[in-house]
Amino acid sequence: MQNVALLGFGTVGASVARILDERISDVNLTSILVRAGKEHVDPRATSNFDAILSDSALDTVVECMGGLSPAYEYIKAALIAKKNVVTSNKAVVSAHFEEFMTLAAEAGVNLKIEACVCGGIPWIAGIQKVRRIDEISAFWGIMNGTTNYIVYSMLKDGTDFAEVLSKAQELGYAERDPSSDIDGIDVRSKTMISASIAFDVICTNQIPMSGIRNLTKRDLAMFGSHDMTIKLFGRGVSNGSSYAVVVEPVAVPLSAIEAHVPTNFNVATVVGDTIGELKFYGQGAGGNPTANAVVQDIIDCADAPIEGQQNFSANLLYNPELFVSDYVFRTQADIPGGSFWEPGAQLVKNLSAEKARELLTSALTQDPTTFMAALEKRN
Amino acid sequence: MQNVALLGFGTVGASVARILDERISDVNLTSILVRAGKEHVDPRATSNFDAILSDSALDTVVECMGGLSPAYEYIKAALIAKKNVVTSNKAVVSAHFEEFMTLAAEAGVNLKIEACVCGGIPWIAGIQKVRRIDEISAFWGIMNGTTNYIVYSMLKDGTDFAEVLSKAQELGYAERDPSSDIDGIDVRSKTMISASIAFDVICTNQIPMSGIRNLTKRDLAMFGSHDMTIKLFGRGVSNGSSYAVVVEPVAVPLSAIEAHVPTNFNVATVVGDTIGELKFYGQGAGGNPTANAVVQDIIDCADAPIEGQQNFSANLLYNPELFVSDYVFRTQADIPGGSFWEPGAQLVKNLSAEKARELLTSALTQDPTTFMAALEKRN
Repeated sequence: MQNVALLGFGTVGASVARILDERISDVNLTSILVRAGKEHVDPRATSNFDAILSDSALDTVVECMGGLSPAYEYIKAALIAKKNVVTSNKAVVSAHFEEFMTLAAEAGVNLKIEACVCGGIPWIAGIQKVRRIDEISAFWGIMNGTTNYIVYSMLKDGTDFAEVLSKAQELGYAERDPSSDIDGIDVRSKTMISASIAFDVICTNQIPMSGIRNLTKRDLAMFGSHDMTIKLFGRGVSNGSSYAVVVEPVAVPLSAIEAHVPTNFNVATVVGDTIGELKFYGQGAGGNPTANAVVQDIIDCADAPIEGQQNFSANLLYNPELFVSDYVFRTQADIPGGSFWEPGAQLVKNLSAEKARELLTSALTQDPTTFMAALEKRN
Repeated sequence: MQNVALLGFGTVGASVARILDERISDVNLTSILVRAGKEHVDPRATSNFDAILSDSALDTVVECMGGLSPAYEYIKAALIAKKNVVTSNKAVVSAHFEEFMTLAAEAGVNLKIEACVCGGIPWIAGIQKVRRIDEISAFWGIMNGTTNYIVYSMLKDGTDFAEVLSKAQELGYAERDPSSDIDGIDVRSKTMISASIAFDVICTNQIPMSGIRNLTKRDLAMFGSHDMTIKLFGRGVSNGSSYAVVVEPVAVPLSAIEAHVPTNFNVATVVGDTIGELKFYGQGAGGNPTANAVVQDIIDCADAPIEGQQNFSANLLYNPELFVSDYVFRTQADIPGGSFWEPGAQLVKNLSAEKARELLTSALTQDPTTFMAALEKRN
């Protein structure tokens, strides 16, 4: 029997508790950390973290609070106290992955993070399994359900960005402050974590990042006339000696699987040298799917940790020049090196992701409505 | 160190040997069973199975021979001798799954079958992981790369079935006798195995099965005019008290992910009650991807077998009436209950999969070119 304490009782935390209670007979949920005054939510609820941690029978701490603090302090304390840690908190993991993994290795406990990326999709475990045999040359994916829902709805209903966003906010699909989703910050955390797993590197570099805040329905129609649609991608590549990661809107051909991912679903792809291209598709958010990933990790904590599985020891240089694409800028600004693509849109070929950001930043000062997307290379 | 013997040195077997030799340091490939006279292929090659099995240091037997006999006898002997068995042979597993699992449980060894279904895709492991938490209500998938390649090429190049098939045979994508692929026999084995894993039942029933032998480019154009394309699916459903499985061509809407699976790729979907819809996409065949799945299973044999993981104990009735669809018949035959769909094609609504086969069999006696497809329900 594995004894588990849960930190946080929001949408994901409550689903974790329900799944453990109703379905998992060899896990015992002993306590739930809530804010002071909220102890009535469950007989096991407490607002005293120290009391939770001092329970010598406790095996595993499950953090579903989100945010950087006190999640960071609690995870660190739990690892030092030799408890397994399972977390769904991408922000704190992407910021402190190396420190957490070092502490987990020193303590001989598990640190499990499946729910941080792509919700219920077994993406982290999938990459780890591929890496038992293969080197990974690339990964990419639709890793944010909110932005996929926005683009999907804009296309389906012919509505514009702001209208869909406010509807998504009403439905609870998007935050009141949507910048984490629509500017790519959420995808950046997930991409950094994915790169760490895929390439065995600490990915703390300044990633080229842009989002879909300025995407209009006219933009979608323009790309549509080229048999393309827009998806916000997190991407990583490695050539064995260096690696790069980027977060950006990509114009994908309608023949691509990614073009047909509906509503708030996610799909993520990894390429290994013997397995080839492998895709994982599913619910990237939501209480039950995310909680499912958390509970899968809890179940796996019954096994001893795999020694040094993630030791970030790969000797890879970060080289942003590895990402070179053709970029479309829909803007009234003058784009150096740009050629006509469509009325109001210019094409620049063979730009590095970093250089594209420089052009975008400059264009935005002249035309704050500028939208930029990379053109997916067609096979 | 795990000591492994390999039975069979064809495309998959040779890839398994290469991957083990070059990449997996804690597995020792000690011997390779080949046909008498072929011992020169590798210093470890032998034609003597009994000598292989009598090696008391041997941990795992890997069967990549294909076919029913002697694969059946060798697997049985290996399990009785308390060796783990890993196999890529869907035919022998679908025919003898219960007996093999019983022998493995009695011997306390692993029986691993990932490579039997969808090549390199972690589909079997994926279903097993979902089942740790969820009940599975449905699965479906494109599980045969050859037929996907045929339909993909017909659409892409505007060629007809026979032409694409003979090109696929030239390229080695299709067998000289293509009936296992195009009549659904290969998919039937994979669907039966998937159902056994998903629903924990022995699936030995006579499955409703039909293939794409009679599919023409005019048929594809007809379905295309309804924004649909044709894919050969293996499918299973369960409502908690009964289950059904079927192999058939399905007319899927162009909005579906499945419609955009290219060349010889596979995609398979499982639906669980908390995880929702989960899809796995990748190379469904080929030496390296299939060998990758075999090697993943070999690596997992280092762990002790999970007791009773597949004990086929679910108390589910087989009820073919669970599958009810609308069916299109392109035929000159008279279809009882059929109404006009397109010139030369009739629609019959709300047919069970079994009843549809009865109508198809009867229609084929009048018009041997008859093609039948189920219409995918749109969301």
